[in-house]
Amino acid sequence: MTIHDPAYGPDPADAPPLRWGILAAGGIAAKFAADVPAHSSGTVVAVGSRSLERAQAFASTHQIPTAHGSYADLVADEQVEAVYVASPHSEHLEHALLAIEVGKPVLIEKSLTRNAAEARELFAAAKARGVFVMEAMWSRFLPHMVAMRQIIASGEIGEVHMLTAEHGQGLDHLEDEHRLKNPDLAGGAVLDLGVYPISFTQAVLGAPDQITAVGTMTTTGVDESEAITLRYGNRALALLGASLKGATRNAATITGTKGRIEIEPTFYAPTTLTVVPREGEPRSITPAVGGGFEYQAAEVARCVAEGHLESDLHTWAHTLAVMETMDEVRRQLGVVLPGE
Amino acid sequence: MTIHDPAYGPDPADAPPLRWGILAAGGIAAKFAADVPAHSSGTVVAVGSRSLERAQAFASTHQIPTAHGSYADLVADEQVEAVYVASPHSEHLEHALLAIEVGKPVLIEKSLTRNAAEARELFAAAKARGVFVMEAMWSRFLPHMVAMRQIIASGEIGEVHMLTAEHGQGLDHLEDEHRLKNPDLAGGAVLDLGVYPISFTQAVLGAPDQITAVGTMTTTGVDESEAITLRYGNRALALLGASLKGATRNAATITGTKGRIEIEPTFYAPTTLTVVPREGEPRSITPAVGGGFEYQAAEVARCVAEGHLESDLHTWAHTLAVMETMDEVRRQLGVVLPGE
Repeated sequence: MTIHDPAYGPDPADAPPLRWGILAAGGIAAKFAADVPAHSSGTVVAVGSRSLERAQAFASTHQIPTAHGSYADLVADEQVEAVYVASPHSEHLEHALLAIEVGKPVLIEKSLTRNAAEARELFAAAKARGVFVMEAMWSRFLPHMVAMRQIIASGEIGEVHMLTAEHGQGLDHLEDEHRLKNPDLAGGAVLDLGVYPISFTQAVLGAPDQITAVGTMTTTGVDESEAITLRYGNRALALLGASLKGATRNAATITGTKGRIEIEPTFYAPTTLTVVPREGEPRSITPAVGGGFEYQAAEVARCVAEGHLESDLHTWAHTLAVMETMDEVRRQLGVVLPGE
Repeated sequence: MTIHDPAYGPDPADAPPLRWGILAAGGIAAKFAADVPAHSSGTVVAVGSRSLERAQAFASTHQIPTAHGSYADLVADEQVEAVYVASPHSEHLEHALLAIEVGKPVLIEKSLTRNAAEARELFAAAKARGVFVMEAMWSRFLPHMVAMRQIIASGEIGEVHMLTAEHGQGLDHLEDEHRLKNPDLAGGAVLDLGVYPISFTQAVLGAPDQITAVGTMTTTGVDESEAITLRYGNRALALLGASLKGATRNAATITGTKGRIEIEPTFYAPTTLTVVPREGEPRSITPAVGGGFEYQAAEVARCVAEGHLESDLHTWAHTLAVMETMDEVRRQLGVVLPGE
């Protein structure tokens, strides 16, 4: 039974079927493996890990038919029609290129790459090979985000002039070697958490004209937290935060001249959206959602079936601009990753 | 009957009696005239305006015995023990000095002055004359702020590392000549609205080590909105917003390593405070409050009775540091007031 409200975009169960291979068997891959078969027309037919044992354990847990002990074997698997890259950010470019080289569509966890230069290389390779590529910014496809776009487009909240959003998680207990704290694995708050409020803001307001960022650092040399402001000409401002030190409210608010939209709890996951008009009573929307990751998978399936190289909704240009904003945030904070 | 919860500081009705004179008969003076006699031991014995007619109308509305047609007459009135300056920011220094010169304690609306230089001049005059002076940052004395300080001091939310607060109001309909848009009257979002989140943040974290600000401007040349970040060494960050273009959420959130405090709606007025622990159930506190302005008036009455020149809780140094932060925000935005 489908859990989806047709008022907020197409049902993921109605997308063309697509057989997925999961590249890297970590925590976020587990959510993909759970959501996609349960709530969309997609299936997961294989998982690959550098450790065959790890791949087999993941396959067993998630009832996936095939486990591969290398990423090359995964992308070469003839049953695999599309690849989901769920490795650390530092590996995304290399792993996405494996799929692109064999001509298979690829959905790549956010942040897409470590920096904008790597993102450009990735998109250039996809274009040259004629392969579909998309950043796995799952939030963008969620029904409450569809509702948000409908409400803003309707003019109900007027001209948007202020946006606030933050994403903090209590991850300070992690070991220094953990990918989130490790520069070698492209750790740091902005690439892992800040990417959500930055991408969200850009979806509403576009790429900013001015970026400021201040932050704090881990002892391992990555950004532990940051406070970011974005300016859009003389029309709008955004205030964004990210932190590994504790769970912030993780709400988003979009203020316009005629009212505002509040999204919480956890603005980037299935949640409640409330419209607070300048005059009159607030109203809330909580769209039914089965899992969450099925929406991005369905977008890939639709785009691939239609022969597109990129999603019209979540374009390469959007992702590249987000990477450029994060590059600038890291530059202002003095966070340099190995080899940059 | 007193409306006050004794768990959150002294009852305003228990403060020593004090006879107030109100300098300038505007909107905020009306709230003072309503709250102080109704909910504290203070009384309002006179009001002064440049227009005797306006003073008389205000006195009639608020049942104040005496109306004066000049500020000099108001401060000279022997019935007046303390003066509340409620004129536009641009006039605060001049009007506060009138009270200081006749040796009367003075409570001055926020922002205290146009800039830090004027604030220093004001405090120097008060010190030289031995007169009590305090900025009318009423929020700081409200019971939910007492509760906030108790909770932070208890260690319940751990080390504070992220703070967000904003203050936006839908004031875009105002005429260009209105004080909020008029450079001659020290208009602009930061001096009128931003002072709340800035002072609030400083009350929690102290004066910042680094300030960044971006903003938008009115056609009249003052700041219409701003997005501000504050950094406190490597320990904490703050994200603050202010806007004349629309009502933002006006919530404040203080995130610590063990949990967070959410204050809303309207963090700076009597409201609800919710503690969200890292683990466990949230709990909310909504202290009973009669009006709101009675708490700051009671603080003045206590300090004056004890012979202090400044409040221990809301010090001159605090107010001066807030003015310095606002100076820096305006400098980064390019907002220069006449004569600066």
